[in-house]
Amino acid sequence: MTGKQTWAIPEGYIPEESTGPEPEMISHESLCVLNTADEDATLEITVYFTDREPVGPYEKTVPAERTEHFRFNEFEDPEEIPKGEPFASVLESDVPVVCQHTRLDSRQAENALLSTIAHPGE
Amino acid sequence: MTGKQTWAIPEGYIPEESTGPEPEMISHESLCVLNTADEDATLEITVYFTDREPVGPYEKTVPAERTEHFRFNEFEDPEEIPKGEPFASVLESDVPVVCQHTRLDSRQAENALLSTIAHPGE
Amino acid sequence: MTGKQTWAIPEGYIPEESTGPEPEMISHESLCVLNTADEDATLEITVYFTDREPVGPYEKTVPAERTEHFRFNEFEDPEEIPKGEPFASVLESDVPVVCQHTRLDSRQAENALLSTIAHPGE
Amino acid sequence: MTGKQTWAIPEGYIPEESTGPEPEMISHESLCVLNTADEDATLEITVYFTDREPVGPYEKTVPAERTEHFRFNEFEDPEEIPKGEPFASVLESDVPVVCQHTRLDSRQAENALLSTIAHPGE
Repeated sequence: MTGKQTWAIPEGYIPEESTGPEPEMISHESLCVLNTADEDATLEITVYFTDREPVGPYEKTVPAERTEHFRFNEFEDPEEIPKGEPFASVLESDVPVVCQHTRLDSRQAENALLSTIAHPGE
Repeated sequence: MTGKQTWAIPEGYIPEESTGPEPEMISHESLCVLNTADEDATLEITVYFTDREPVGPYEKTVPAERTEHFRFNEFEDPEEIPKGEPFASVLESDVPVVCQHTRLDSRQAENALLSTIAHPGE
Repeated sequence: MTGKQTWAIPEGYIPEESTGPEPEMISHESLCVLNTADEDATLEITVYFTDREPVGPYEKTVPAERTEHFRFNEFEDPEEIPKGEPFASVLESDVPVVCQHTRLDSRQAENALLSTIAHPGE
Repeated sequence: MTGKQTWAIPEGYIPEESTGPEPEMISHESLCVLNTADEDATLEITVYFTDREPVGPYEKTVPAERTEHFRFNEFEDPEEIPKGEPFASVLESDVPVVCQHTRLDSRQAENALLSTIAHPGE
């Protein structure tokens, strides 16, 4: 399996409210990353906004032959991502990985889901 | 990050009704555009219909290193996009960008979501 | 805008039941096709099943510079597509088009949505 | 129609609970595979986790000119996939196929759906 070293996700939005049992049903955006290589992948994630400079890199690791499903609402360093505000993200990895974007939205009584494979850079 | 200068979204539909607090929960289709370049992107969006000539271009700007999440239900110039009618769209940009399509549908009591990376042109 | 002449959608399923006002909220799978060319596109759609021979071609037209959002539950010739049964589809077009797949599922009281750009053939 | 022999799906999660009539509304993740070739496709699916070695291959067949919609919650050999835990998957096929990922989530009273074409390997 060959992945890519760069991925972009233009859509990002962490709803301000949630309904249902925590932490499973907290509204969240996830970045699902699969590393099928036999070495660890070091990720640098940059977050883009509508009205200010990009923030990052957020550094993450996906061990060899593992998957990690990161939640943007748990990003802390260098700073938290504000809720209720549009953002976008770019992931750079030192080894090829595959990246998928998912949102669980529980603002209303029942949850809604969206997902797409991210856009691979070149 | 290298994007593309042309993107197509065959699906488009602005529901006529909404449920829930405005403006957050108004039914809408979004065009999420990420510009990672160090120069502003000027977009020209053309909207296609089932039974009449295409309309456009709608001109939009995404500043350098910013993202914009445009809502089709807020497009006004050259004309509004009618609700309850299928449409499609093509985005042309003077610098490479990445484009994702999202719909929030609140016609019924709970919202539903869909999303996909748009189709990159060549 | 350059599209492709072949598109595949492995997922297909027309729910047997619906909730909500007809025809808008009838459960349906849609095939959204955008033709940006200046000539009409003639489509031949083949439908695949789990346990019997493929059916088709279903012939459809998307006029020049138009979009059409076809619903699989309205396909009739050469035969209707059964509800409550998995299927898949392949679209062949004589001019390049772009194709997106969407499902509205209203089996339960609130609707759910999914969508993805189809897989372009080569 | 030309498919690919390798596909990756970074997102995977089988919810622990379901609401609604079984088996139709049981929460599930599906792997929809379309084989348009005139020979059977033999699939080897490997499942990746966050904290332990990958499991597999799960062997499946998609007959010539057929589609199969496999549910991860029905995988048994070499072992079941645990519920409530993130996973990812890679599909290898001996003939080119097309692969789409879908989740039906019925943890809350109304269902939610997500879907995306998987990422094709090279």
